[in-house]
Order: sequence, then structure tokens, then C-alpha cells
Amino acid sequence: MALNERSLIARYFRDCGAPRADVAVGIGDDAALLDFPPDMQLVAKTDTLVSGIHFLPDSAPASIGHRALAVNLSDVAAMGAQPAWALLALTLPKVDEAWLEAFASGLGTLARQHGVALVGGDTTSGPLCITVQVLGYVPRPAAMLRSGGSPGHVVFVSGTPGDAAAGLLLEKGTLTAASPEADAYLRQRFLFPTPRLELGQRLRAYASACIDISDGLLGDAGKLADASRCGIAIHYEQLPISPQLASSTGDMRARELALTGGDDYELCFAVPPENVERLTHDLPPSQWDYRPIGLLREAAGAVVTRDGTVMDFSHSGFDHFGS
Amino acid sequence: MALNERSLIARYFRDCGAPRADVAVGIGDDAALLDFPPDMQLVAKTDTLVSGIHFLPDSAPASIGHRALAVNLSDVAAMGAQPAWALLALTLPKVDEAWLEAFASGLGTLARQHGVALVGGDTTSGPLCITVQVLGYVPRPAAMLRSGGSPGHVVFVSGTPGDAAAGLLLEKGTLTAASPEADAYLRQRFLFPTPRLELGQRLRAYASACIDISDGLLGDAGKLADASRCGIAIHYEQLPISPQLASSTGDMRARELALTGGDDYELCFAVPPENVERLTHDLPPSQWDYRPIGLLREAAGAVVTRDGTVMDFSHSGFDHFGS
Repeated sequence: MALNERSLIARYFRDCGAPRADVAVGIGDDAALLDFPPDMQLVAKTDTLVSGIHFLPDSAPASIGHRALAVNLSDVAAMGAQPAWALLALTLPKVDEAWLEAFASGLGTLARQHGVALVGGDTTSGPLCITVQVLGYVPRPAAMLRSGGSPGHVVFVSGTPGDAAAGLLLEKGTLTAASPEADAYLRQRFLFPTPRLELGQRLRAYASACIDISDGLLGDAGKLADASRCGIAIHYEQLPISPQLASSTGDMRARELALTGGDDYELCFAVPPENVERLTHDLPPSQWDYRPIGLLREAAGAVVTRDGTVMDFSHSGFDHFGS
Repeated sequence: MALNERSLIARYFRDCGAPRADVAVGIGDDAALLDFPPDMQLVAKTDTLVSGIHFLPDSAPASIGHRALAVNLSDVAAMGAQPAWALLALTLPKVDEAWLEAFASGLGTLARQHGVALVGGDTTSGPLCITVQVLGYVPRPAAMLRSGGSPGHVVFVSGTPGDAAAGLLLEKGTLTAASPEADAYLRQRFLFPTPRLELGQRLRAYASACIDISDGLLGDAGKLADASRCGIAIHYEQLPISPQLASSTGDMRARELALTGGDDYELCFAVPPENVERLTHDLPPSQWDYRPIGLLREAAGAVVTRDGTVMDFSHSGFDHFGS
């Protein structure tokens, strides 16, 4: 990428994120130099978005910028950590100023919302591909891992999973929403997901394990259970379904999307029974937007139960239902 | 990327880097969790390699893995910092086990040489593109920046720049080396560059400014001078040229490649005159492989001088020579 293109890009990204006093050296030297707070552990995460895989080629660039950061912030949230700094590796087929401005605006708005400084990066020519790294910290040794759960712990999920998957179907034109309002809501959930950073940090005081459900609730809850060396039963009836989703797809398809759709960037977390009352008192579920959906249990694997019976289920969706 | 492909990739990368006691949580949770040492500043860098731009599409995968890490380590070296952890974002057109094994071997060998743990990453389907992030630390406030130089400081370069650019020409088939030994040496300098990590850390005690010359010595030395709010004069005759390069290209082309070729991953650094004797005593140039090449000066800009006269030069190469 030519020198004038580099300087063009520097112009869009130099002041893109939040200003932070702990950035000793940001964009412009060989590497970023950051004042790391004492008594904290460093949290680091990287995720890539590729055109045609993670977003539609004609997606709004503000959404691509937002999501490139949000997917990483969601993982930081799942550790109960505070994000602080981000680096951006941007591979572009060409320098398009309008595209760059909107992309930087989407990324920068979310970064400033959460006090994240953009401290470095790299721009290269090539097929559109965005890799963001987020760095943050969490008090030692309070990070939430996937592995802290035990049988009997109550499993919760934030938000209303399935909405983002429906939003993607709307973007692709393979679903019609029940109303213009539902259409706008569901697309927004896919295009501008909300990383649950404040909830994640609050949960450190109550939860035994946490994961973000970017790959789908059932699969990711299963990973939490595996890491915790137990299994999980998710109660079909307890899945929180948004009215916008239910009205657009019908209840059965909505619950299937809630279990297997990806891109929700909500948190799934386990809470020891003795902490549940304190949790729901201190963080009222209606205000903090989370609901119980099941239990960790001895038997390995992730199952969905309905009226106390395990439902027959495969990753390709509901094949048929147990009686 | 399907689940079995993810687990295949996890197999190649889980034990790829160095084991480190400060990795509380590595690959396998939502994010990496790292014990950060006290009284240090965090150094963070990311760089991307794209097929067809940074390496030839048919490059040996061990070289691609080596270079993807080396380019970042070189920036960490230029800060005088100690690398500790890396994250890898790997976008692959397909899962090719032989390719992955060789790539991981190239990256892992270099990582283990420098005690760097691979603590996280992301694998996606798409056009071949590799983004590595390196995290490290440096004693507060001892990091070397580009901006610490002043007029009169002596400028040095490590290694013999131009070798890597000639190696790339050999790989492309547009240059013939003087001998099989020169051919092997120059290709190696391009395919497996050596980040100058130990030199960088030692230089903290002597140098006022430092940069890595991945984009070419003249341009990068100019960036150091710009950041230091001064200019630089590089002495044409003092450029260290390897015999393998000189014999393969002739002296004039060799010096042009040394000034404008990229991919050398050597360090260019400025040293206050009062530190030079101590530097060359403590770190003998013949042993540590660096040479003086010029001086920082008041007049802005980067120039090349020969017999005390400024040479006429442009970024597209030597147009013609001043008398």
C-alpha cells in the first residue's frame, strides 16, 4: 500500500477510539506502549471478519467496523474483564475514502462507548479482511473462565438469542419479518450487536463460569459444560425469545434459531445455587436482561429438555421431537 | 470453518510456541489470561501478511509461519522490549494438513527460540491472510522510541541491508546469484529473517531512538529522523553490504537495494556521541553485527551523501548521481 494511502488511513484511525491516559505511545511508532495497571491480569483476544463469510460483501461499512470490534469485546466481557486497547489489521482491496470513513465511524463509536483506545494496526492491500485485537485487564485472580461450573449450577443467558441469526436471514433476503419494526430490530441485532461488558464485569461476583454465545447458544453452552467437566440441560420452554423473532418466524423456528443461530454475542453463564438469590437481587434480571435457561448436570453433553424429556436434536436443526 | 477443522487446527497450534509459567489461560477459553510482570510497560504490535503481497503464493509454508511472527518480533525488538505472548489470526482457503504442519513448525520454531507462547487466535475460511499479534514488555520508562534522537547522534544499522530484497528477486526469478552459496544465503535472508531481539534489549542502555527497517533503510531512517524532529544523512560508502549481495548484483545495485529494499528486519538506531565509545566497547560491532552509517542533523529530510556531497535520489531508486 502506497505511502499516501497509509497516511490517508492514519487520518481515519489516529483519533478513532477513546483517548486514554495510559497510552504512552499509540499509533505511529514501531509498536504501542501501554501503562499496565498493577494487580491485574492481562486479557488478550483476536478475531477476524472475512468478507462473504462473516458479513455480506455489500454490508454497510459502519456495521463491519462495529462488528469487528464487538466480536472481540464480547469475548473480553465473557472473561469479566475491562477492555482498554485495540489494534486493527485491515486488508483492503482498494482505498475507498467513503468506505473507510464509515468503517472507522462504526468501530470508533463502539470503542469510545467502552473507553477503548485504538493504539496500533496495520493496513495492507488484499481481499477485504479485518482482524481486531482487544487487550484489557481483570483483577487477579477473578477472571471468569469456561471451566468453573459444577453440576447443579444454574445456567443463564443474556438477551434474546436467535435475533441476530434472523437478522442475517433478513439481510440475505431469505426471511420476511412480521412488521417493519420487527425487521429493523432484528437486522440491528445482527448488524450492531451489543457486547455485554458491564454485565460481564458485574457477574464476576456471582458466576462460576461464563462464555459468549457467538457460535450459537447450544454449542457454546456445551463448550462451557465440557470445560467444566459436566453436562448441561437447557429447558426449551425457558429460552428467552423476542416477540419480534417469534412473530416473524413462528415459535418453533424461533427456538431453533435461539439454540443454533450464531452472532448473538450474548453471555451464557453458570451460577452456584447459593449465589442465585443474591445475583437476582443485586442485578434484577428485567433490568440487566438475562434469564435462567437450564442447569449444569453430571451427565456429559448438551441436551435440550421439554416437559422433563430430552428432545431429539442435531446440529442441522431439530430433526424431530421426542415424546 | 467446521468443527473438525477447528480441532485439527487447535492440534497444530496448541503446543506450537514456548511454554510459559505466566500464561494463566492460553488457547481454549474466550480470551487469553496472562500474568503481567510488575513495573513493566506493555508493548503490543500487529502485522498482516497477505498472499501475493508479502509472500509469493507458492512460498514454503515454514517461511510464511516464520515471517508472520518475525515481522512483529522485529518491531518489539525496535522498542527494546522482551516479547512474551503471541496471538494468530489465520484465514485459510482450505485446510491442508501438510501446509498447516509446516506453517506451525516455522512459526513455532521461532517462537520457542525467543520464549514466546502462542496464547490464542482465530481460524477462518477465506483468502490466505495471516495476522499475528505480539505482546511483550519493557521496563518503565526505558522503551526506545523513534522520537528520541537529536542532531549529532550517530546512526547505526544492524546486519547487511539489501540482502532480503535480493532474496526476494531470486525467489521471483528476476536475479541470478553469483554462486550457489550466495543464492542460498540471500534467499534465506528473505525467507527466514532474524529479528534482532537481544540487540534491541541491549541497546536500551545506549541508544536515543530506534526503528526497524522493514520498509527499507532510507525510508525508515527518515521516519526516525522525522519523529525526532531532525534530518538524517546516510553515508553511501559506509553502508554495510554483504559480499554475497555485492557479488550478485554489483556494488551500485547492492547499495540501492540496501537503501530502498524492504524486508530486512534489521534495526536502525541513533546513539548520542557521548555513548558511542561505551556502546562499541560493551557490544563489539563485529560480534553484534552493526555499523555506523550516518548522522542525525538539523536539516529536515533523509539524504544520502557520498564524498560529502548529497546524492540525487528518489523513492523509485537512484535516478542519477550528483557530482
